[in-house]
Amino acid sequence: MLLGQMMEMPLTITAIMRHAERVHQDGHISSITVDNPGHRITYGDAFARARRLANALQELGLQRGDRIATLMWNDYRHFEAYYAISCSGYVCHTINPRLFPEQLEYIVNHAEDRALLVDPTLLPLVERIADKLPTLRQIIVAGGAVPDSALPNLVAWEDFIGGASEDFRFPALDEREASSLCYTSGTTGNPKGVLYSHRSTVLHAMACASPDVLGIGSSDSVLPVVPMFHVNAWSTPYAAPMLGSNLIFPGPKMGDGETLAKLINGHGVSFALGVPTIWLGLLTWCRENDVTLEPLERVGVGGAACPLAIMDEFRERHGVHVQQGWGMTEMSPVGTFNVPRKALADLPLDNARQVQVLQGRTIFTVEMKITDDDNNELPWDNEAVGRLKVRGPGVCSGYYRLEDSETHDAEGWFDTGDVAAITPDGNLRITDRTKDVIKSGGEWISSIDLENAVMAHPAVAEAAVIGISHPKWTERPLMIVVAAGEAPSGEELRGFLKGKVADWWIPEDVVFVDELPHGATGKVSKLELRKQFKDYEAS
Amino acid sequence: MLLGQMMEMPLTITAIMRHAERVHQDGHISSITVDNPGHRITYGDAFARARRLANALQELGLQRGDRIATLMWNDYRHFEAYYAISCSGYVCHTINPRLFPEQLEYIVNHAEDRALLVDPTLLPLVERIADKLPTLRQIIVAGGAVPDSALPNLVAWEDFIGGASEDFRFPALDEREASSLCYTSGTTGNPKGVLYSHRSTVLHAMACASPDVLGIGSSDSVLPVVPMFHVNAWSTPYAAPMLGSNLIFPGPKMGDGETLAKLINGHGVSFALGVPTIWLGLLTWCRENDVTLEPLERVGVGGAACPLAIMDEFRERHGVHVQQGWGMTEMSPVGTFNVPRKALADLPLDNARQVQVLQGRTIFTVEMKITDDDNNELPWDNEAVGRLKVRGPGVCSGYYRLEDSETHDAEGWFDTGDVAAITPDGNLRITDRTKDVIKSGGEWISSIDLENAVMAHPAVAEAAVIGISHPKWTERPLMIVVAAGEAPSGEELRGFLKGKVADWWIPEDVVFVDELPHGATGKVSKLELRKQFKDYEAS
Repeated sequence: MLLGQMMEMPLTITAIMRHAERVHQDGHISSITVDNPGHRITYGDAFARARRLANALQELGLQRGDRIATLMWNDYRHFEAYYAISCSGYVCHTINPRLFPEQLEYIVNHAEDRALLVDPTLLPLVERIADKLPTLRQIIVAGGAVPDSALPNLVAWEDFIGGASEDFRFPALDEREASSLCYTSGTTGNPKGVLYSHRSTVLHAMACASPDVLGIGSSDSVLPVVPMFHVNAWSTPYAAPMLGSNLIFPGPKMGDGETLAKLINGHGVSFALGVPTIWLGLLTWCRENDVTLEPLERVGVGGAACPLAIMDEFRERHGVHVQQGWGMTEMSPVGTFNVPRKALADLPLDNARQVQVLQGRTIFTVEMKITDDDNNELPWDNEAVGRLKVRGPGVCSGYYRLEDSETHDAEGWFDTGDVAAITPDGNLRITDRTKDVIKSGGEWISSIDLENAVMAHPAVAEAAVIGISHPKWTERPLMIVVAAGEAPSGEELRGFLKGKVADWWIPEDVVFVDELPHGATGKVSKLELRKQFKDYEAS
Repeated sequence: MLLGQMMEMPLTITAIMRHAERVHQDGHISSITVDNPGHRITYGDAFARARRLANALQELGLQRGDRIATLMWNDYRHFEAYYAISCSGYVCHTINPRLFPEQLEYIVNHAEDRALLVDPTLLPLVERIADKLPTLRQIIVAGGAVPDSALPNLVAWEDFIGGASEDFRFPALDEREASSLCYTSGTTGNPKGVLYSHRSTVLHAMACASPDVLGIGSSDSVLPVVPMFHVNAWSTPYAAPMLGSNLIFPGPKMGDGETLAKLINGHGVSFALGVPTIWLGLLTWCRENDVTLEPLERVGVGGAACPLAIMDEFRERHGVHVQQGWGMTEMSPVGTFNVPRKALADLPLDNARQVQVLQGRTIFTVEMKITDDDNNELPWDNEAVGRLKVRGPGVCSGYYRLEDSETHDAEGWFDTGDVAAITPDGNLRITDRTKDVIKSGGEWISSIDLENAVMAHPAVAEAAVIGISHPKWTERPLMIVVAAGEAPSGEELRGFLKGKVADWWIPEDVVFVDELPHGATGKVSKLELRKQFKDYEAS
């Protein structure tokens, strides 16, 4: 083997910091925090504070590879923690505050976290379980002062780093060293930890940096409403400083339409990312208050299929192009991303919308395939539907401290648990989760297709479809609807679906509810719905 | 050390091919070749042909790591060779046809090339030295038939791959294996080979893919006028299929303004890359024929400082934004790139132009510093001028089959041989080559600053400044000018420089010549100029 003669420079998060400090030091981060709703800091100053935090953490007597937990919203302190922890050779364990207390307790103990950085608004969660977290040596509360609390060992962030020097020499790291840890909240069993490496994080950020994916540069301001406590905010905390984009962080106000609108217009946000629910709230507020999102150019949507109505309203009222993406915690997280506006510009609107509803093409570094139940690869013809499997340097090879992974096959592909078709030109179309597929008369019905179709009805705010047992067809779909305003009749919705999906897919049963149950990551919990409707009798 | 649990997937050129074949198979390559001035092929079909070429090459009985030379223009066959050779585990040795015959002979023998792929227009170069190339087993002439030649062992490309199957299983490669080889033609001594790895090539292409660097996506058509036989055409043969952009290749017509204009307008080229001389020819042809480059949005310029006149004419006549870059063969090659139009949009034109003349900021993965002669780092204040040093995973660590590298320091930094200042926000300003600096009265005069300043004069087509010895000041600058039309007087040019550079920099001596000598990479040969003017007496 003849080796190339190129420099050995590891792919580390430290290299992203070094790059941003030299050439994008004037880029800035604007944040809403509990102690300052209008905070602003340059990358140069944020990294200086990250070095102070690194110095302070070192004083705790930590070992290389130790896990440090964060339970925080998107803001500059969380950003500083990302870099201070990972670049010190510790593992930044981001925790989702929407988990149940027993799940929180489980993962802190499973990870054996040594310290916890927590937002003051989330401290009550910790207080409930703190006496069951024996590995924690220090709890650091984001802000300048410690709130009233029964917990004895609290220190305020600003006091913690108060005496620490800005001089800190981050250690030389192997690019395969662990950098961060995020637990997925499966619908059954305990959460499972995905242990990212510096290499996977950097490669994923570089792939996301492509013009057709995040597509952000030094003239952009980016609003990640996707959380840093989960799926690494789609790599924006890494990609933005790498590319020189400003970061606009909503702090605890992620779900507040008014706040998001003011951040977008006040900070010249050109690109925003989040799940569909977030955008529903933003669009509603803008409509009701006659506000237009002037600087916004693009919105990235993931986490759930984006209803066409959202894309249409963004385009028609705000001139904003919506790009869907798809990914998972296990994938760093981005797997696919839909094409930019320019690529659709020459298509008639209807055709462009048909492309927009797809999940998009794989980013470079991610490979995907669909297989039948016997692991035979299926064609990319937009017809064949199969299990979606992926591989790549940003995909996990197993789970932290678990011997086996049932989701990795013998050749190393990861089974996403999604069911999908792929168009001949490589656009992913997710049709279901494996466990949500409805088997009716020996054929599959896609719950997601039904949901998307009915959510285009103006009187439908949200909808979910689950399978209910049926004496003749094994299963039939049950459609559960949250109405927007006055509820339409089930018959009207059935008529609306006609021609949009196969006739035999159309649910005989439609029920209206006040709200749907959502899980910790904001997705509709079909497990919960199946429990609620387990005794429902198909008509 | 705690390792991350992410998949081991090597960074290989094969992965780029696999990605493009799945999601950008309909992207296409348009080429001018000797046998077809209007050739077009999709990526899907080009990679199928690459597999046939790989099969045919394998029949030559090659070993992993063997070097295969190419002596070709930018076209689809050269593209196919890039992938067939590197992905087979051989080394794609691109040769610059503008080298002297003795240099060609030296590098083929130094590399021990086993086969040579040659364009029919370049076959005469090979005929002159073929009997001195003992390692060559096969010469393959690009096209469907072998031209008349005294050489015995020629085979036409299409015959060579004629019987070969499209089925080929590319080997699993280590990402640090050598992928390609390119010799730099130094001004003294033998050419030195830079041996790229798969890893360096992929990382460089990913970094170049950033929105603020190449910034190309699936809606772009890219015209690399920078050669594939040298500096990897600025990574466009890798980045374009990775990102889904079409490639438009000018073949042997790189220097022809009319051809370039027709390619741009006929193929909807949105981004073109090349050295300043190329653009002078294109702009002149457009001006004389009243043609506007409608689809063109951006031009990337490197290889030499781009005169402001070129940037102004592109902007004013064609609405095109010019972005300078800077790099070297030793750097894969891109080191820095200037900011995009959007970032300059809010600046007054004069300020924007002041930014445009800089070489830009480092791409991610490249680090730079400037040092004094004692290797002390100098500040980034746009004042301090020092030796420019770089490092990164895309920078060479030495030269092929050379024991020592005088250009790498003890800490592993590569001395670029350039002299530069850096602005506080990280923009590079090259002031000279180390060996071209003029030392006058103990201070440095920048030959490049003087050249840029005088080239803004409308009657100056090209200019070079060298140092000539002076009894009192050690050296003084001599300005050598090619006039555009009627030559101005030396006094007029001296007056023109007043206020644009320091008074004591202004050359006492200005001479006019019909043309300047250029080296193999298209740059003015100051070595040759110094020879020509070695007896010139300073006034």
